[in-house]
Amino acid sequence: MDIQLSKFQMPVGFKDILPFEAWLRRKLKEGFFQLFNHWGYQEITPPCLEYYEQLRGSSKEEELFKLIEPSGRILALRPDLTTPIARMAATHLKEATLPIRLCYFGNAYRYEGIQVGRQREFEQAGVELLGTPGVGADAEMVALAVESLRLSGLADFQLGIGQVAITHGLLADAGVPVGEIESIKLLMMRKDFVGLEEKLLQLDLPKERGQEIKAIFSLRGGGEILNKITGMAKTETITKAIEDLKEVYSALGVLGLTKHIFFDFSILRDFDYYTGIVFEGYASGFGYPICGGGRYDGLLGKFGWPVPAVGFAIGIDRLVGALPKEEELGLDVLVAGGNLADRLHAASLLRKQGLKVEVEIIERSQREIGEYMLSKNIARLVKVEEAKSND
Amino acid sequence: MDIQLSKFQMPVGFKDILPFEAWLRRKLKEGFFQLFNHWGYQEITPPCLEYYEQLRGSSKEEELFKLIEPSGRILALRPDLTTPIARMAATHLKEATLPIRLCYFGNAYRYEGIQVGRQREFEQAGVELLGTPGVGADAEMVALAVESLRLSGLADFQLGIGQVAITHGLLADAGVPVGEIESIKLLMMRKDFVGLEEKLLQLDLPKERGQEIKAIFSLRGGGEILNKITGMAKTETITKAIEDLKEVYSALGVLGLTKHIFFDFSILRDFDYYTGIVFEGYASGFGYPICGGGRYDGLLGKFGWPVPAVGFAIGIDRLVGALPKEEELGLDVLVAGGNLADRLHAASLLRKQGLKVEVEIIERSQREIGEYMLSKNIARLVKVEEAKSND
Repeated sequence: MDIQLSKFQMPVGFKDILPFEAWLRRKLKEGFFQLFNHWGYQEITPPCLEYYEQLRGSSKEEELFKLIEPSGRILALRPDLTTPIARMAATHLKEATLPIRLCYFGNAYRYEGIQVGRQREFEQAGVELLGTPGVGADAEMVALAVESLRLSGLADFQLGIGQVAITHGLLADAGVPVGEIESIKLLMMRKDFVGLEEKLLQLDLPKERGQEIKAIFSLRGGGEILNKITGMAKTETITKAIEDLKEVYSALGVLGLTKHIFFDFSILRDFDYYTGIVFEGYASGFGYPICGGGRYDGLLGKFGWPVPAVGFAIGIDRLVGALPKEEELGLDVLVAGGNLADRLHAASLLRKQGLKVEVEIIERSQREIGEYMLSKNIARLVKVEEAKSND
Repeated sequence: MDIQLSKFQMPVGFKDILPFEAWLRRKLKEGFFQLFNHWGYQEITPPCLEYYEQLRGSSKEEELFKLIEPSGRILALRPDLTTPIARMAATHLKEATLPIRLCYFGNAYRYEGIQVGRQREFEQAGVELLGTPGVGADAEMVALAVESLRLSGLADFQLGIGQVAITHGLLADAGVPVGEIESIKLLMMRKDFVGLEEKLLQLDLPKERGQEIKAIFSLRGGGEILNKITGMAKTETITKAIEDLKEVYSALGVLGLTKHIFFDFSILRDFDYYTGIVFEGYASGFGYPICGGGRYDGLLGKFGWPVPAVGFAIGIDRLVGALPKEEELGLDVLVAGGNLADRLHAASLLRKQGLKVEVEIIERSQREIGEYMLSKNIARLVKVEEAKSND
């Protein structure tokens, strides 16, 4: 019996998507495509597999699903779509006029510890805006992320905005030694205040510096946070970056979107490639980000085309997890009676009227048909008359 | 330079899908989904990876892309979707009322020799009708395959129908020794008449038997072929199977689809699991089948649920290869002028009218904007007035 059961086992982290969820995913993805397309984004699709060298650095090495070709070269399943799309763009689109707006839909794969909200195979929908470093691109990206979450039907959601260069700069300005900035950022990402206290003791900084660093840890709130950090900035680069964020926030205000926005400078994202604004979308009552993205001005240079870029991805699995499950699938008509050819013919006429129609293809009693229609949520029965001429 | 170029190489048999083709694929798949759904088929999605044991036998072993989990278990990328869907159905749908109509969309992977029309990663759209052995299911499946090809926009296409049990039975009845039937079927699939002559010499059968076997090789044509083979059948099982095919053909006649149909008893498909009717769709001027399928009454039993089934899949890559490439992608409006917030706001109003709108996010001259619009096929320019109040 055990052997029999194990025969149908699935690898951990993979799942079967049944009709209701498949329908929900299709509806969400189609909606996102229409939205992205109406903002000028065109779809492209990279392969699921790339040479391992292309994907190094886009994910932790131990998280890549690797395969070895008979030729001996190592392939890997993509751990996200941004890196393959950067490779694609650098290969095919170098000659196109900038900016370039791209969108994508597909699965990504990461061999990591199983936790709620993260499968090893997961589906993403996303956009990339290539070729411009400016605040206009940042604002468009955040606005489109908010519109995406609004479209998805979440009852209540928020987008948290950070800026990795600002966080990095503030920590440096507050006197964190260069070699320690990354470990402090890691503590921030984990919201690990206890770890921070320990680290500060260990670094033995002046008390005032320690207070400043702790203050950076808790930079979270509405637009007022931007004024607060303006006072903390000590270099022109950081001051300029804060001014840019203020302009993004102002544009979001004109669009009526600021009710969905907060700032959180501990948002740093777990990919190494981000260089500027970063953001994550959260649904009320769901513990993992639904979407995330930001500016990655260095990634395309890795593929020989040094242009700035910004983008985001929506985690379809997480979004589905956060949405209420309500609707029922069903059909309009079951065609029974007559002979097979007549039933098929009647069904084809009904389908031309836009109805969803199933044809009776097995011999069943009236009672069995009734039970079947109930179980499949079929609204109406159409019975074909016998002895119809086959004109 | 060579190192630099090799950096952007892709694995053989994989491809980047650029905007026009991505748009075409999306349009085709959405059309197929609507069609399948209107025939009562519900979408399900299996994972791309399964345990290797589950997939054995669904493809040649050397064609599977294999991965080894740290636990030591072997995974493989699915070589088609029918086997994972049989596994899914046997796992989740055993209690559902029969018949069950399912459809799917996804990539499959086969490590095989590269030839025109077959990538190592290829996309399929398909349907499976589970739980009924009858001629009604066969007729529905063939009719739906024809409707799919009609919908796809192919100028000229044909569906060739075979029946593996009939071919097998006719060869046995003609005196081919049991141990040689498979090798004769292989010669038939390859249309290898020279090989057949050699094989017949080797078998040393009576001349009359040899003539009969050669006749089976060339059973190809319209509905009249069915009458021809009725005379060749020597067992009741085969006679009944031919009667069933006649009923399918008659139903297709009522639906007005027979102009797209021919019979070819050398069509045997290259998966081992087919047990009855099989068919392949061909586009005029394209050398590989666009779609294929048939009855596989034994496959679900492998997963502990012995129900009959019939289905087909459309090869999206091949279909795209066979279709003319014409349409151009483009946008309706570029919004320029004013400040960033005003442009974003104007764009959001235009999008609410259903327009595809791009916002100008970099500083450019009138001339540059004109060139850009031309290169991106943007129909209209909307300039926002300065000094608009941000109400």
